[in-house]
Amino acid sequence: MEMRAFRHLLPIGVAQSRLLREARPIDRTERVPLEAAIGRVAARTLHAPRPIPAFPRATWDGYAFRSADVARASRTSPVRLSLVGEVFAEGQFGRRVKPGECVAIATGGRLPAGADAIEIFERVRRAGANIVVDRPVTAGSRIAKRGEDIALGAPVVGAEEVLTPAAIGGIAAIGRDRAEVYARPVVTIIPNGNELLAPGERWKDGGIYDCNNATLSAVIHATGGLPRSELPIADDPRAIERAIRSALRRSDLVLVTGGSSVGERDYLPQILPRVGRVLFRGIAVRPGKPTLAAVWNGKLVVAMPGHPTSCLSNAYWLLLPTLRRIARLPGPGWEEIRVKLAGSPDGPSPDLTTVVPLRLGAGLGYPTFHDSHAITSLAGVGAFVIVPPGGAPLRRGSTVSAHRLLPPLGPA
Amino acid sequence: MEMRAFRHLLPIGVAQSRLLREARPIDRTERVPLEAAIGRVAARTLHAPRPIPAFPRATWDGYAFRSADVARASRTSPVRLSLVGEVFAEGQFGRRVKPGECVAIATGGRLPAGADAIEIFERVRRAGANIVVDRPVTAGSRIAKRGEDIALGAPVVGAEEVLTPAAIGGIAAIGRDRAEVYARPVVTIIPNGNELLAPGERWKDGGIYDCNNATLSAVIHATGGLPRSELPIADDPRAIERAIRSALRRSDLVLVTGGSSVGERDYLPQILPRVGRVLFRGIAVRPGKPTLAAVWNGKLVVAMPGHPTSCLSNAYWLLLPTLRRIARLPGPGWEEIRVKLAGSPDGPSPDLTTVVPLRLGAGLGYPTFHDSHAITSLAGVGAFVIVPPGGAPLRRGSTVSAHRLLPPLGPA
Repeated sequence: MEMRAFRHLLPIGVAQSRLLREARPIDRTERVPLEAAIGRVAARTLHAPRPIPAFPRATWDGYAFRSADVARASRTSPVRLSLVGEVFAEGQFGRRVKPGECVAIATGGRLPAGADAIEIFERVRRAGANIVVDRPVTAGSRIAKRGEDIALGAPVVGAEEVLTPAAIGGIAAIGRDRAEVYARPVVTIIPNGNELLAPGERWKDGGIYDCNNATLSAVIHATGGLPRSELPIADDPRAIERAIRSALRRSDLVLVTGGSSVGERDYLPQILPRVGRVLFRGIAVRPGKPTLAAVWNGKLVVAMPGHPTSCLSNAYWLLLPTLRRIARLPGPGWEEIRVKLAGSPDGPSPDLTTVVPLRLGAGLGYPTFHDSHAITSLAGVGAFVIVPPGGAPLRRGSTVSAHRLLPPLGPA
Repeated sequence: MEMRAFRHLLPIGVAQSRLLREARPIDRTERVPLEAAIGRVAARTLHAPRPIPAFPRATWDGYAFRSADVARASRTSPVRLSLVGEVFAEGQFGRRVKPGECVAIATGGRLPAGADAIEIFERVRRAGANIVVDRPVTAGSRIAKRGEDIALGAPVVGAEEVLTPAAIGGIAAIGRDRAEVYARPVVTIIPNGNELLAPGERWKDGGIYDCNNATLSAVIHATGGLPRSELPIADDPRAIERAIRSALRRSDLVLVTGGSSVGERDYLPQILPRVGRVLFRGIAVRPGKPTLAAVWNGKLVVAMPGHPTSCLSNAYWLLLPTLRRIARLPGPGWEEIRVKLAGSPDGPSPDLTTVVPLRLGAGLGYPTFHDSHAITSLAGVGAFVIVPPGGAPLRRGSTVSAHRLLPPLGPA
């Protein structure tokens, strides 16, 4: 069994920025039904093809008339108006409203020509075929002017805007039932290792079920990507290289798990330089040191550590911002919080950055890490602290800055 | 045109708690592939069918031997061990390791019987067919004990747990490729109003494109539900009642938009008492007063206001917690924040609760509301403030408590 050593471990900030610099935002677009558009990224600015509302509309149920008619109305000298018709939301009054006339109008109804104000039903007395108004009503009252909500040609959503319910409502309001959005990035995951069994496969003594594929798929899915998982492939450098080359042609990003370390059967350090331009070979971080990256034809391939916790930890601080850049989602995928530690985590190391996962609860952060090979080291994780090399140890009771993962990556 | 009046407007807290009390958490379950399980709710507790690891494993690349052999090793009196074989991750050493022997072992490899410690390659000198160890190594070093990560029979995920990447990794680690989760609640939306056009339909003068369907669908989709949208139906009380009854049979929740107010063609106040037991008829809130709810056979039907902003505002403070209860998601769907106001919103009203939407940016909350009929009143909304009736006005510069919507409901 032969061993090589990691040389030139890259500081984590440099590794992050190299990946971000090379990450190519997706250019493909697709049209999706509005009900599935939430969280997607608009591919272009949409302008209103007509004003909204398209005509002056009643915003309340009431009576429409000429405001001049009631300008001097008061309790002591109320004004009578003759009720000459009604307008429901979909209809319109056939002619101009003349002085001394009024029309009953429902919310959403088109304001009849001539009328310029609406008084609500509750504030008016009905007297046979007349109504009695006992206060002035300002012109424009209870009327949405043409284009008041959205002017003709105004942008309803902007290119690169992440679609929220209100933005989707705006698209519906201009009459579209589909949104043009950037396609989901395709991310292929290639697990490698002779010992790996795919979940669902029959248990074999000596085997280990691969869980990195599942955790990475979950992160990709939650970040707007389409995970494509390959079955585990054996420790055969030609087969691995073939799989990477083939995946790169079909994907926007390729991840390999395992085989990235310094052991005899860790072939990735040999393979990546043949596949593309190497960005880094090992990162000065724990967990997660054996991580490599290369770029081919504008596409990234990242070899992730085989240890489940190392792999998922790297997925958070390293892959998440990269994936979001490719998917054209804003920000790194976490937000900064200050949190008080409920325990004293390991570290720091003199020469490695330590990533400390925290479970959040009752305003405290509970360090969860115990072993980089244990998937349970990240159970319930909602945030992580980046501890630089050579810093002061983190102590129970101290308040630290942490990156909080938002649902569905962090707990709801 | 006839008008009725709202009587007995319900305080918002009472409306919320009546809906929550009647909301029936979904019982149907389904099996989904792990890569699509993120954010879903586990339907039952999963126990490990075998310990993980299933055997004592190397957690580093190194040499395995008997710790007793090197108990007195030092620089001045190093210990030589004879290298008798190697174990890769998937293999095993055929026999017991005897005193004075060692076996090269790769990360993940099964610890050979007899050996009880591993020293890493970098700390050992190779000398022909021997290795030279110059420090003691504690028993158990660099070994993951059988069951150390997950003990036999230990719960890997709990019933009702929202699946995060680490939980999904746990399911994969015990060899499953699917997760049993609660089904997505089916929510049918029935838009009603003669004036409504469905988005995608050809523009007709006098029409108004229905955007409530789209905004509600987006909220439902983001809350783990399956929105089923019906085409707008006309203001015909029999047709509306038929549509509601039919939808109730096929759905976990039914929403009707429009027709919930006090106008002549607002039929919902008449229809709901025929369909089920009425929970409320009007809420003391603005925007959003004309909101009704009934329950039939354990299923809720909620009539939402027709004004886009009223409808979406209610969707946030009223429907979201209800939907989450039905979907078995924890919490109301927002989180409490404190935020400084960048403007002075309307309100409060003497007798209505005011819901004030805020756009969040640069640590400030910008009131966005201008009109309940304007969908743009909620553009970019990330939080909302609940202002009780008769309270003090909210002023620019003051810091208030707000409910923050998390992505994808709020902006990323």
